[in-house]
Amino acid sequence: MRTRAAVALEAGKPLEVMDVELDGPKAGEVMVEIKATGICHTDEFTLSGADPEGLFPAILGHEGAGVVVEVGEGVTSLEVGDHVIPLYTPECRECDYCLNPKTNLCQAIRSTQGQGVMPDGTSRFRMTDGTPILHYMGCSTFANHTVMPEIALAKVRRDAPFEKICYIGCGVTTGIGAVINTAKVEIGSRAVVFGLGGIGLNVIQGLRLAGADQIVGVDLNPDKRAMAERFGMTDFVNPGDVSGDMVAHLVELTGGGADYTFDATGNVDVMRTALEAAHKGWGESVIIGVAPAGAEIATRPFQLVTGRVWRGTAFGGARGRTDVPRIVDWYMDGKIEIDPMITHTLSLENINEGFDLMHRGESIRSVVVY
Amino acid sequence: MRTRAAVALEAGKPLEVMDVELDGPKAGEVMVEIKATGICHTDEFTLSGADPEGLFPAILGHEGAGVVVEVGEGVTSLEVGDHVIPLYTPECRECDYCLNPKTNLCQAIRSTQGQGVMPDGTSRFRMTDGTPILHYMGCSTFANHTVMPEIALAKVRRDAPFEKICYIGCGVTTGIGAVINTAKVEIGSRAVVFGLGGIGLNVIQGLRLAGADQIVGVDLNPDKRAMAERFGMTDFVNPGDVSGDMVAHLVELTGGGADYTFDATGNVDVMRTALEAAHKGWGESVIIGVAPAGAEIATRPFQLVTGRVWRGTAFGGARGRTDVPRIVDWYMDGKIEIDPMITHTLSLENINEGFDLMHRGESIRSVVVY
Ligand SMILES: NC(=O)c1ccc[n+]([C@@H]2O[C@H](COP(=O)([O-])OP(=O)(O)OC[C@H]3O[C@@H](n4cnc5c(N)ncnc54)[C@H](O)[C@@H]3O)[C@@H](O)[C@H]2O)c1
Ligand SMILES: NC(=O)c1ccc[n+]([C@@H]2O[C@H](COP(=O)([O-])OP(=O)(O)OC[C@H]3O[C@@H](n4cnc5c(N)ncnc54)[C@H](O)[C@@H]3O)[C@@H](O)[C@H]2O)c1
Ligand SMILES: [Zn+2]
Ligand SMILES: [Zn+2]
Ligand SMILES: [Zn+2]
Ligand SMILES: [Zn+2]
Repeated sequence: MRTRAAVALEAGKPLEVMDVELDGPKAGEVMVEIKATGICHTDEFTLSGADPEGLFPAILGHEGAGVVVEVGEGVTSLEVGDHVIPLYTPECRECDYCLNPKTNLCQAIRSTQGQGVMPDGTSRFRMTDGTPILHYMGCSTFANHTVMPEIALAKVRRDAPFEKICYIGCGVTTGIGAVINTAKVEIGSRAVVFGLGGIGLNVIQGLRLAGADQIVGVDLNPDKRAMAERFGMTDFVNPGDVSGDMVAHLVELTGGGADYTFDATGNVDVMRTALEAAHKGWGESVIIGVAPAGAEIATRPFQLVTGRVWRGTAFGGARGRTDVPRIVDWYMDGKIEIDPMITHTLSLENINEGFDLMHRGESIRSVVVY
Repeated sequence: MRTRAAVALEAGKPLEVMDVELDGPKAGEVMVEIKATGICHTDEFTLSGADPEGLFPAILGHEGAGVVVEVGEGVTSLEVGDHVIPLYTPECRECDYCLNPKTNLCQAIRSTQGQGVMPDGTSRFRMTDGTPILHYMGCSTFANHTVMPEIALAKVRRDAPFEKICYIGCGVTTGIGAVINTAKVEIGSRAVVFGLGGIGLNVIQGLRLAGADQIVGVDLNPDKRAMAERFGMTDFVNPGDVSGDMVAHLVELTGGGADYTFDATGNVDVMRTALEAAHKGWGESVIIGVAPAGAEIATRPFQLVTGRVWRGTAFGGARGRTDVPRIVDWYMDGKIEIDPMITHTLSLENINEGFDLMHRGESIRSVVVY
């Protein structure tokens, strides 16, 4: 069939919106009509050319929501009409990773997903002239229709608005999951969140949900303060306003160091500060941000020997098919908020404006509505 | 009273064995007749001058066992005749750290201990000419009699041999505790231990006790192999024999990476290898070794974002007054072994030979018996 998509033809160029050909789902696959998709930093990372594993031409986008329009042979858990959220981290429930309760990094389709193809090694997308187009993170939500493996789709309730819950496909789950699944923050904890962008705000609301007593936000941009307070931040620190050592300042502010700290900047120096601002004896620091290729984190081992723990998280430690539908429920029940974070809504034809807004730091999340 | 002690007069010089004056215990303090003491790398670290916090003159030694000979005012948990193991990490059971189940780093007497004095700010030791001598790690087991705070003494059963259980005061508990308290290794785990010295061997027997399926030992010195096998090592790797990348070799050997890795070398490059040889998704790496002053650990944050966890441990995460008596029981019940690790027994007069044996790498543990 023919559908409309924004295609990344090469690194560093704007997306080109065009008609593309899409093959129907093969065995174990599902065709989804994407109704809305967020534009995430990871799309920008790949489009810019900074991602050493980026492949082109490809249809980017990994933060979507839509409706099942066709199911391939052997698909049992989904049917036409189901509402779904695509998962760039699938959940096969059978691999060594899915069977280990300590991780969410299902490896069932990892190598083909990394190569931009479906599990059978081929792409379902091509240009109208026949040139193949690659999938992206197994999702390709910048197309109005896409094909995905059944194990990479979370079935969600039908009354949830696509243009809001699409954000649960990446940012919301990453931020809240880092708190709940990875750090397992306890009621009464003190926490510091570095970076108050789309991810950091979701960490903050995750901390509020988990019952944290103190939620310190750190950002170089003072304009981030108001929104972060709206989501539960109790104290704001602008590193530019701190004379002297940031670690000492944060340790003082948190009464000895934070129980949990989170990096949502992607800056390796910030990651070090985050670790060292964690409380001696038990403080844990969670890396969410994606660092530039080749960048390294460092600290003195004494920081760990005296009880700090250094962790990271991918997709907030969430097992998508299991956890994403619950987070949709939390949104519908008013336990978490998404609406104020969707600052811009665009049509597919204007998708490049979403990247411009991101570059200018004006959006939290821009969402394309089909 | 007068007692016999090996005194560290200055950095880089051998200890001098001499008579010293010891004041009786003040309130909350206890005088202990030390019956045996191990010589640990930490004593050597301080004596060499490499420890930036080392203070002189001092009576070193922190791995002892002995008998209570006098109790100060208000001491309730110990009486004359009790057998005890000195604790360089005390357990007051009242401070914020003791009340937090995630840490063993009791802070009750931390600052005075670091300054080489008792909690009242003074030393109990002096030379016969009146020159004050400092305490060390709150223990000073290189003296035949010492004075310690009540909260820094573990009461142990009376039928356990001093010249063996003294090793539980540091090395045994550090190694076994790193497995049991810090890593919390589960039955069936695969593990890699870097460094097969006194600490590494105890990590290995801790892993055997915890029911690990695979216990890989790594050491540059092939002479360490036989003893490590005796304690439960299943595979030996000499980095000198590995052509190519050590991480890749270990990942292959452990079928995808180890569930737990332990650094017992103190080398920061080894610490990085240990982290990266941990299994994607869930592998945890525990730093036990003490690095040279100023040395830093580093890795790409991607290693953590893909699920590895970096931790450290001090005194094996053990709460001394609670855990040390249990480890003494394990030794007496044959659950763990100590005897083969005590390779040399010396008199106090010959204590410097113990340091020579350590420098030449000939001993696992030298023990001074008074
Ligand atoms: N681990 C995962 O699964 C995952 C998923 C999605 C995104 N991410 C990553 O999370 C990070 C944050 O994403 P986002 O969408 O929130 O980005 P964003 O650009 O919206 O927000 C980043 C914020 O950090 C602030 N900042 C930058 N440098 C700073 C510094 N040195 N000190 C303090 N604040 C600083 C910026 O002002 C901005 O407000 C990115 O690195 C992204 O790639 C990770
Ligand atoms: N964290 C704590 O509470 C604690 C307590 C006691 C000791 N320690 C530290 O533990 C470490 C080990 O102590 P130990 O008494 O076992 O020392 P040791 O010297 O007896 O053993 C170290 C072993 O590591 C091996 N080794 C050295 N460099 C290596 C390398 N690059 N690769 C592989 N193997 C290498 C040596 O051959 C040796 O067998 C020291 O750093 C010590 O200070 C820590
Ligand atoms: Zn994303
Ligand atoms: Zn799986
Ligand atoms: Zn020691
Ligand atoms: Zn305490």
